[in-house]
Amino acid sequence: MAIVGVGLIGGSIGLALRARGLADRVIGIGRDPQRLAEALRLGAIDRAETDPARGVAAADVAVVCTPVGRIAADVRELARDGPDALLITDAGSTKRTIVQDVESDPRAARMFVAAHPIAGSERKGVAAASADLFEGRACALTPTPRTPPDRLERASAFWRSLGCRLVTMDPDSHDRSLARTSHLPHAVASALAASIPAEDLDLAAGAYRDGTRVAASDASLWADIFLDNREFVLDSLDRFASEIDRFRAALERRDRSALLALWDEGRSNRDRFRDGSSAP
Amino acid sequence: MAIVGVGLIGGSIGLALRARGLADRVIGIGRDPQRLAEALRLGAIDRAETDPARGVAAADVAVVCTPVGRIAADVRELARDGPDALLITDAGSTKRTIVQDVESDPRAARMFVAAHPIAGSERKGVAAASADLFEGRACALTPTPRTPPDRLERASAFWRSLGCRLVTMDPDSHDRSLARTSHLPHAVASALAASIPAEDLDLAAGAYRDGTRVAASDASLWADIFLDNREFVLDSLDRFASEIDRFRAALERRDRSALLALWDEGRSNRDRFRDGSSAP
Repeated sequence: MAIVGVGLIGGSIGLALRARGLADRVIGIGRDPQRLAEALRLGAIDRAETDPARGVAAADVAVVCTPVGRIAADVRELARDGPDALLITDAGSTKRTIVQDVESDPRAARMFVAAHPIAGSERKGVAAASADLFEGRACALTPTPRTPPDRLERASAFWRSLGCRLVTMDPDSHDRSLARTSHLPHAVASALAASIPAEDLDLAAGAYRDGTRVAASDASLWADIFLDNREFVLDSLDRFASEIDRFRAALERRDRSALLALWDEGRSNRDRFRDGSSAP
Repeated sequence: MAIVGVGLIGGSIGLALRARGLADRVIGIGRDPQRLAEALRLGAIDRAETDPARGVAAADVAVVCTPVGRIAADVRELARDGPDALLITDAGSTKRTIVQDVESDPRAARMFVAAHPIAGSERKGVAAASADLFEGRACALTPTPRTPPDRLERASAFWRSLGCRLVTMDPDSHDRSLARTSHLPHAVASALAASIPAEDLDLAAGAYRDGTRVAASDASLWADIFLDNREFVLDSLDRFASEIDRFRAALERRDRSALLALWDEGRSNRDRFRDGSSAP
């Protein structure tokens, strides 16, 4: 098992593989020797490697956990240097541009199954990693007509072995859906936090705490996700802005029944949400 | 001790008073005999009373925990029927209109200290009440020049005895601050939940869960709060909408450094938040 990028997600995969005895050896591949040393120390990997070609040489499976802007290039590099039977999968928060880019390379396309385990944290780095991060969480797989069935089967088994429940869809549907359920809530949390002056925070409580939690996430990681999934994020922002406008207009004209109707729309969607982390 | 309105907040006050041995007897006053019976059964009150005059006749302190639209009338009624030494306080989420209305009645003005313990839940009713709801939470007191100092002292001691840390301010400052830190996040959570179709929720995770949690709150209670605090809520919505616009514009023009700068604004505010529930 090779893991490229041993941060929160890569580190959690390593911890899960080792805790469950799923790999003979977990090789962490990265650019930064200090981060790799921390991953070794925390038991997320068995061996550290700064040279991807050496790291992947004897691997069955390689999981790419680098930022979305780097994933496709990392996948192509591993495909070039890895054994023919290598399965490559990833953990990127967007899928469309990554799949397009990887499929421009025929060898990489034959080895790759795009994936997105939907688990994370506003914290970053291997120090925040945990072996049960994926337990009961959804993992989206986004194969295309060019994805070999045997690789899809192996990727499914791999992500399932970490505790994920699998959801298969095409890359576009994934990106549209994630724009709504993840990228939009991140943008909203950030704008909410930016709009509330620090001097008011003495009276802030649960609604503020939860509504802005993910605003503490990594800026660079999220800028890349927004830019990569720009069109769907803009669409979801427009839908959201029109809900805010409807609320504002109802309040402006003191329309209590319109306020109640808008509230009920939100609540009826919210009531259908079942938190993956507590799912069986 | 008399508690008018024995739901989540009133019930939690009753449980806290009884758990801490702070009252000889806790009398629950309400309109609905069934709800009062449930409060009795759950140990939140010692006696149930549907007639406010009888309930308050022998009370030292009365806490009004009814919806914001009813608080001022309930306070005036208790002032009329209660003993001269009665302290009346409340737990309403807004303060300006309540204080104005109560102070139109000279007897009520001499007995009343407006308060807002900043604790709650998206759940409602006495079944969701808990004795430690107020532990470590802020409680805003909003006295005016007409508030007698002895009543302010007694109200401070009362709320402090439930575990609250006190923050004293004028009613306007309270309502402006709460519009930003509580009412706005509720409106945003509701609009966010309304804008995300239920069919996408299979992939929703932590950012959705936390960003929309309070959208499950009681519609009628929140419509009243928004209407009562309409101007400040509209102001805070405008501030928020302009942050969303800035984000949208930066993403539209693919401006990575603007996205990073906006994100950092939100994060630097968020980083200054210290959750009251974990405060000493």
